[in-house]
Amino acid sequence: MTTNSHEQPQLPPTVAIQNSLQHSPDNWFEYLVKAHPHHTDYAGVVWHGTYIAWMEEARVECLKSIGVEYTDLVALGCDLLVAELSIRYHQPVLMGMSVVVKTRMAHMEGVRINWDYQIQSIDGQNQFITALVALVAVDREKGKIMRQLPPTVKDVLVKLAGSR
Amino acid sequence: MTTNSHEQPQLPPTVAIQNSLQHSPDNWFEYLVKAHPHHTDYAGVVWHGTYIAWMEEARVECLKSIGVEYTDLVALGCDLLVAELSIRYHQPVLMGMSVVVKTRMAHMEGVRINWDYQIQSIDGQNQFITALVALVAVDREKGKIMRQLPPTVKDVLVKLAGSR
Amino acid sequence: MTTNSHEQPQLPPTVAIQNSLQHSPDNWFEYLVKAHPHHTDYAGVVWHGTYIAWMEEARVECLKSIGVEYTDLVALGCDLLVAELSIRYHQPVLMGMSVVVKTRMAHMEGVRINWDYQIQSIDGQNQFITALVALVAVDREKGKIMRQLPPTVKDVLVKLAGSR
Amino acid sequence: MTTNSHEQPQLPPTVAIQNSLQHSPDNWFEYLVKAHPHHTDYAGVVWHGTYIAWMEEARVECLKSIGVEYTDLVALGCDLLVAELSIRYHQPVLMGMSVVVKTRMAHMEGVRINWDYQIQSIDGQNQFITALVALVAVDREKGKIMRQLPPTVKDVLVKLAGSR
Repeated sequence: MTTNSHEQPQLPPTVAIQNSLQHSPDNWFEYLVKAHPHHTDYAGVVWHGTYIAWMEEARVECLKSIGVEYTDLVALGCDLLVAELSIRYHQPVLMGMSVVVKTRMAHMEGVRINWDYQIQSIDGQNQFITALVALVAVDREKGKIMRQLPPTVKDVLVKLAGSR
Repeated sequence: MTTNSHEQPQLPPTVAIQNSLQHSPDNWFEYLVKAHPHHTDYAGVVWHGTYIAWMEEARVECLKSIGVEYTDLVALGCDLLVAELSIRYHQPVLMGMSVVVKTRMAHMEGVRINWDYQIQSIDGQNQFITALVALVAVDREKGKIMRQLPPTVKDVLVKLAGSR
Repeated sequence: MTTNSHEQPQLPPTVAIQNSLQHSPDNWFEYLVKAHPHHTDYAGVVWHGTYIAWMEEARVECLKSIGVEYTDLVALGCDLLVAELSIRYHQPVLMGMSVVVKTRMAHMEGVRINWDYQIQSIDGQNQFITALVALVAVDREKGKIMRQLPPTVKDVLVKLAGSR
Repeated sequence: MTTNSHEQPQLPPTVAIQNSLQHSPDNWFEYLVKAHPHHTDYAGVVWHGTYIAWMEEARVECLKSIGVEYTDLVALGCDLLVAELSIRYHQPVLMGMSVVVKTRMAHMEGVRINWDYQIQSIDGQNQFITALVALVAVDREKGKIMRQLPPTVKDVLVKLAGSR
């Protein structure tokens, strides 16, 4: 009775990270979005900044899928801020299209976490976007980059990275 | 494209819509969203303008659930523009929360379509937002309010309204 | 050497509130904005939710013009949250247009501050939007509506309201 | 509409543009923005996607300053779409700050126009953002990358590029 075009289907978290059904064989986490009118601009296609929001949503849901709820992280005093971002726009997503935002953690360098992105048609035939995002862990109180990730976060991320 | 809004939405429906699984017994269409970081503002809660986007998404998905794909409507030369909107903010949605955007078509007056909204917690215990939105059908080519809805659209909307 | 399409021209704050040159004779505060591509949607006009952002900007700048810097207010522990909002869309603003967001404090009821809005063409010949916004003062720490406004804020607002 | 970006922006300009008051000596166009509540996220700083909108505004105003009104370009059937974008976030802009978005056309490669960006404090002491954006000219009707820019646009851009 409820539709959910915004969120990745919630699979029961009963299996270990590396077997997660929410991740494709090549370890991509997949997040479905649909292009609504407010996402578009005068050209009738998704405005180029909108993808940044979709990528953030996919990242938050990917972290959740491995047991890291972003709001918990924030409550612990740790923000994951975007330090760098680059996007290549191959072709625009049109209004009404449903597309898949694929993301995966590429590698970690200390408190820097790199993510790869691809935004594709559901059948995988069209590539709309490829992108990279680098996050850094920031101590909310001090407003400074952390020297190291909170242990609980690090453990789960290392496990994720190691599983590949 | 000036519109007059002399009336508020009418009484609640007296007949349940019996066959749509996407609609609750009291005819609300339910659309799930989750509050992500980009939806929030400095206060740590969802920015007050974000709800407008969520309401638009719910409306588009509700129309789709009754067979009206919004992009088809646009391709036919008909926009459904917002002519009036009012929102009451009862309590803010916090980052990380998943909430239900409930919407239903309240009544039609010619080419004016009125919608009711409620944004609630998933368990229905908390009311965050109540709102009303009035749409008008606009001829894309002429840039003017249509004298009547495209027949195919009208039929399906009348059916929806009539079923209540 | 610098352009500033976003901000109200900065007049020297040398005169008393009621004589402020930033306010028109009928006490409207005027804030200029220009419709850029990211403000528009597929219909080639400003997306209906964009006006909410423009209205917020005008409100913040209006408060600033009477000596209330919003970030100072927040630092003092007081948020002014939107409790209610209603908008009537008379005609859409087109991409590339510069328009005037006019706002004024309508009246105060305790910690509730009501604002009127009009969005017009620069020559005043076209009315695009009329709107009302009600703010309430919220204690940031307690997360509750304040019993009364912080004295310094109240004084300046009362003076503004009284000047009319 | 795939684009190839094999090159980074070239060396800084060697000749100042002598007649535009809107451009600084080193040819940066400067555009002032202020961080309002709707630009921020839960962390109390400007959300990382917001800068994309500011950069677009600065670009549109820069083009206008050299006589290219973006809406005219669109009316002529030419969109300038973002083909590539990369941003480095040095430090976040806080709510209430006014900052300068500096942009300049770096160089043209056919229908590809490269832009440099810096977002700085007004006194130039703090660097918040550095970024690159590559635009391509797209034929609106055909939905394809143009073989060459519309002559009137090309002339003015070449003049701008050549003046450096």
